[in-house]
Amino acid sequence: MAKRALIILAEGAEEMEAVITIDTLRRGGIDVTVAGLAGKDTVKCSRMVSIVPDTSLEEAHATSPYDAVILPGGLKGSELLSESPLVGQILKQHENGGQIIAAICAAPIAFKSHSIALGKQITSYPIMKERLVENYKYVDERVMVDGNVTTSQGPGTAFEFALSLVKQLAGKEAADPLINQMLLKLKM
Amino acid sequence: MAKRALIILAEGAEEMEAVITIDTLRRGGIDVTVAGLAGKDTVKCSRMVSIVPDTSLEEAHATSPYDAVILPGGLKGSELLSESPLVGQILKQHENGGQIIAAICAAPIAFKSHSIALGKQITSYPIMKERLVENYKYVDERVMVDGNVTTSQGPGTAFEFALSLVKQLAGKEAADPLINQMLLKLKM
Repeated sequence: MAKRALIILAEGAEEMEAVITIDTLRRGGIDVTVAGLAGKDTVKCSRMVSIVPDTSLEEAHATSPYDAVILPGGLKGSELLSESPLVGQILKQHENGGQIIAAICAAPIAFKSHSIALGKQITSYPIMKERLVENYKYVDERVMVDGNVTTSQGPGTAFEFALSLVKQLAGKEAADPLINQMLLKLKM
Repeated sequence: MAKRALIILAEGAEEMEAVITIDTLRRGGIDVTVAGLAGKDTVKCSRMVSIVPDTSLEEAHATSPYDAVILPGGLKGSELLSESPLVGQILKQHENGGQIIAAICAAPIAFKSHSIALGKQITSYPIMKERLVENYKYVDERVMVDGNVTTSQGPGTAFEFALSLVKQLAGKEAADPLINQMLLKLKM
């Protein structure tokens, strides 16, 4: 059976980070659910792209756990993820269950707010470093995988973030062909 | 005044190519209108991401010409763009007016269908080459700019495509800072 990933979409999410991740994971055979933090309504992203989620986060949570929970960045979106008790509950459930928890760009601040992955090696959008450095082993890497925690830096690292998640969920044999298929200039 | 770009979104459009282009151009200060080929309703893209356009193509056309008209790829989306008389009319108007016309991935087939840019140097997603090679000087480049015609190859070249358009519309001083801001590993 296909692995299942949950992407939580909040108002102000960075749309490239969300869409590159969703699209690449689906190309890799992952069953992706795009869940709206505030419900099923259209989500206005950071650069005014309007995306309709597949379902609400509440409904998506009814079929937890997923094999991965993924938080796109965008400052406002990341702050909303940080403030949501349901996001905290879902992250904690998946952290305890050993499933993958992943965040890109500003979204690792939601890990901190919900006391997730404390002490692990993580990265983020560079200007977020100072908010994270006390609680984590902060590293300057485009993608950092520490156990079941995957973090990455921004729009320009989103393909590498997504490919890392495909590799972890479906194997190198699912991830590697996507590099040529999508015409990426990357080494994995 | 900000330069204006029109992105035409058809069912089955490649969502990464669309969103990377929209987002990067907006970061570069371009006034981008996302117009739905079939109207204002939600557009289901190639990997099932649902995007709500800003307006319909008919309404968007009322304020033509734009400084650039941009076609994202995706096979089904590109075929729908190829079949639309209004897309042909808009492309012809902009070709004749000397504004930028741009297409990525499979979308250059819409140029051919509407007899646009014939004989110019273009590129496309590699498997589309055979459909284009008779009518164009086909080149194997990640981004090709020939006069007012810009083409590119696929999702993995979408950042370079978008940055080239920002550079053409708003100058190198608008495009270059985006490389670091978005954390891209590129040389421009």
